[in-house]
Amino acid sequence: MAKFTTGAVIPVLEGALADGPRTLYTQLYDRVRQAILTGALPLGHRLPSTRTLAADLGVSRNTVEGAFSQLQAEGFLVRRVGAGTFVAEAGPEYYRTPRVPRVARRSSAPVPTRPRGRDALSERGRRTAAIALGPDSAGTHPLVPCLPALDAFPVRTWQRVVARRVRRGGRDLLHYGAAEGYRPLREAVATHVATARAVRCDWRQVMIMTSTQQVLDLVARLLLDAGESAWVEEPGYRGARAAFLAAGARLVPVPVDEDGVIVDAGVARAPDARLAYVTPSHQYPLGGALSLARRLALLAWAHRRGAWIVEDDYDSELRYTGRPLASVQGLDTAGRVVYVGTFNKVMYPSLRLAYVVLPPDLVDLFAAARQQFDGHTPTLLQAALADFIEAGHFVAHLRQMRLVYRERRDAFLAAVAEELAPRIRLGACDTGMHLTGWLGEGVDDLQVVDRAARRGVALRPLSTHYLGPDRRPGLVLGYSSAPPAVTRRALRTLSAVLDA
Amino acid sequence: MAKFTTGAVIPVLEGALADGPRTLYTQLYDRVRQAILTGALPLGHRLPSTRTLAADLGVSRNTVEGAFSQLQAEGFLVRRVGAGTFVAEAGPEYYRTPRVPRVARRSSAPVPTRPRGRDALSERGRRTAAIALGPDSAGTHPLVPCLPALDAFPVRTWQRVVARRVRRGGRDLLHYGAAEGYRPLREAVATHVATARAVRCDWRQVMIMTSTQQVLDLVARLLLDAGESAWVEEPGYRGARAAFLAAGARLVPVPVDEDGVIVDAGVARAPDARLAYVTPSHQYPLGGALSLARRLALLAWAHRRGAWIVEDDYDSELRYTGRPLASVQGLDTAGRVVYVGTFNKVMYPSLRLAYVVLPPDLVDLFAAARQQFDGHTPTLLQAALADFIEAGHFVAHLRQMRLVYRERRDAFLAAVAEELAPRIRLGACDTGMHLTGWLGEGVDDLQVVDRAARRGVALRPLSTHYLGPDRRPGLVLGYSSAPPAVTRRALRTLSAVLDA
Repeated sequence: MAKFTTGAVIPVLEGALADGPRTLYTQLYDRVRQAILTGALPLGHRLPSTRTLAADLGVSRNTVEGAFSQLQAEGFLVRRVGAGTFVAEAGPEYYRTPRVPRVARRSSAPVPTRPRGRDALSERGRRTAAIALGPDSAGTHPLVPCLPALDAFPVRTWQRVVARRVRRGGRDLLHYGAAEGYRPLREAVATHVATARAVRCDWRQVMIMTSTQQVLDLVARLLLDAGESAWVEEPGYRGARAAFLAAGARLVPVPVDEDGVIVDAGVARAPDARLAYVTPSHQYPLGGALSLARRLALLAWAHRRGAWIVEDDYDSELRYTGRPLASVQGLDTAGRVVYVGTFNKVMYPSLRLAYVVLPPDLVDLFAAARQQFDGHTPTLLQAALADFIEAGHFVAHLRQMRLVYRERRDAFLAAVAEELAPRIRLGACDTGMHLTGWLGEGVDDLQVVDRAARRGVALRPLSTHYLGPDRRPGLVLGYSSAPPAVTRRALRTLSAVLDA
Repeated sequence: MAKFTTGAVIPVLEGALADGPRTLYTQLYDRVRQAILTGALPLGHRLPSTRTLAADLGVSRNTVEGAFSQLQAEGFLVRRVGAGTFVAEAGPEYYRTPRVPRVARRSSAPVPTRPRGRDALSERGRRTAAIALGPDSAGTHPLVPCLPALDAFPVRTWQRVVARRVRRGGRDLLHYGAAEGYRPLREAVATHVATARAVRCDWRQVMIMTSTQQVLDLVARLLLDAGESAWVEEPGYRGARAAFLAAGARLVPVPVDEDGVIVDAGVARAPDARLAYVTPSHQYPLGGALSLARRLALLAWAHRRGAWIVEDDYDSELRYTGRPLASVQGLDTAGRVVYVGTFNKVMYPSLRLAYVVLPPDLVDLFAAARQQFDGHTPTLLQAALADFIEAGHFVAHLRQMRLVYRERRDAFLAAVAEELAPRIRLGACDTGMHLTGWLGEGVDDLQVVDRAARRGVALRPLSTHYLGPDRRPGLVLGYSSAPPAVTRRALRTLSAVLDA
């Protein structure tokens, strides 16, 4: 027990110091400081000598000496030779009255208190918080869209590639990297998108990012001013809407049919939009492919108006029937298309590697902005992915995933036909990892989602993908992440929910 | 040579297809498509039969068939049974006249062309581009500040830890991670900052980010509205200024002396600022430590006004004399401090791992915003760093780096004394990886930097760290990244430059 030479025992300094990860020094330092800040040790109060305190607490004198020196260095204690150690008298208001309410009461100035929590944010912060979409789904959820078949990911091969890259990379990979990305990966991406997607680009136009979402955020910040219009598909991808909204843009919903977004409707509604966000290979969520006529009409509008086209080419590698349509970017002759792709679905979600192919005259500006916003993507993972592609593992993996997903899709179609028809009508199904399940008119898809969640099955409603009031009920159904037997069980639960 | 059954040879289709990585199919597809888009193959033109074309080009009929099917699927070609294959007649304006100038000339509507390059950006994009600071230095530059001693990084140990984590992590680490970060790393950071920096926090307040710059960007976007004021140190860290400027904030330069930022001056100039950015452990670039009195005054102001304090605690682990001062965060009792630290300097720059300790009621909102802006940081590297810390390697590494840097600092001080005194006067030198070298009044530090660059020595001028007109000439000199002999050679070059 600490006995103080200058009066009453200070309760906060009492008690043996504990064994454990925090050093005795730190514990003592904390106690004394806390005692000063809370006022338990008054200003000017004399402390026991280091010898006395060390004996009282059963610690070495060095420990006490260390704590006192530190507190002295920080201005909490004053040590006067021959007189002893004192709690410092100096220090502003806050020091003497650490708790805010007391500061507020004592202050003679008016106290404009700011509200807490969400309201403590800036207006921009509140807007961002209001449109935030919640986390991506971790784990396996058989009917949630856009989750890859991690059970089929070649994890051993990937491990070997990463381990080898770590071993061989040595110190060269430790330095700051370029904001544009690691050159061998940029080259590999340029070759991949040229071959697989008919994207026309030089590797210098490729920038490595962490996710499609990061690309959309950067695009919104650099190409859109607050109040400017952006076309978004209706129904459409909510992540894109959130990115443009966070930038203060005005969203113009452009309706979609089985040939993708109806470009003429966009031109009629907002010819002066600054940007159009489209998913031409596989419209999200409905699944149509944008027809060539519309691709060309979209480009003609963008060229005429100097607008930007953001082509989100997600899932384009996963086409099961026929060949994928070539990219809009490859048809562009005037540098109006920003082409976006990601490895986070075809590889695995926690990899955090995506890419954007930029018109040549935007590259330097995007790189400078990205440098300022978050620097660059970790070099080790970029280098490992470049190795994985270079060694042919990526193409082999894509081929394998196409087989796995086609098999899962076929099993899914069969299961829906047996378990759910005719209560659900399925949309396009020749590409990707999900499809649309239309519910009957008047069914409330949010209620279906709620009821299924209570039975342990996660679902994504279609209606939230609409901006306007003209919403059709349905579900965006994934079939990619779980083995067919698991998916079928989930579909049975959904069937029970629809019957309830 | 291709012989066309319907007239003149089309030059673009001529010539043998090349061996190489692109398939014959892709090459033929590209040629035909390009010929259509450029108008070399006119609308309605009949193409040779697949048999004829295959024979002419010396490829299999399947190859031609594949290319034609694809072009048909995309709407470029029309195939009529019994009649042959034709270039499609349909398609909008752009299809027929792919180059923009021609579109522009043909269009009867007025053509509001947007300027190209930097001017094609939004106003926000232009502002961001204008304030962007350029890339971080890769490689070893003996006198550039903030570059770690990568020659002393325990690269073998790190390789072992990553390789083991990759092997053992299996599939569990592949799923989407939390925006807040990987829990074991958040816990390790919470323990580290509590022990080393007297930060008071629960692990749930720790968010893993990619860099200090990313934290500052997020802070600026969520806590500052355009037009609001932010205190920045004068002179101060340019990255922070850039982040706040990009958010449209008004910067209030608050002067700095040897005890850090002069809080009273800030209160006098902009009492209603929304936020104060400070480097209390080691003022950047001058090197002073913020006195306790000023720490408490800063907190008192923030509490009274409901303002935010952004505490950038860079370099705080690297103190060579005495103990580091405890953090401002640890003195805060009202949740007004956002505490920022990074692993990109004490570990290595391309790691891309940093952290922020948030007041509890900001955590959910920051996580939601980060989720939307870029998702999360790659899980593998977070897990490996958690292992590295857990196994004690991180503490050992810090201890080792303190020795290395102290040695390099001592050698640097000796070399400056011999080679450069009295033309350069050095500032505070008891912490970190750099110090200030003051030049005589009237010396133009930008000119010194230019002249040294021409002799192959990179330097950072001090004057660009000031916002206001009252700039003192100097250099921000690093001594951390190169061995002493290399640094001394660079200092000799600097000496020659100053004599010139």
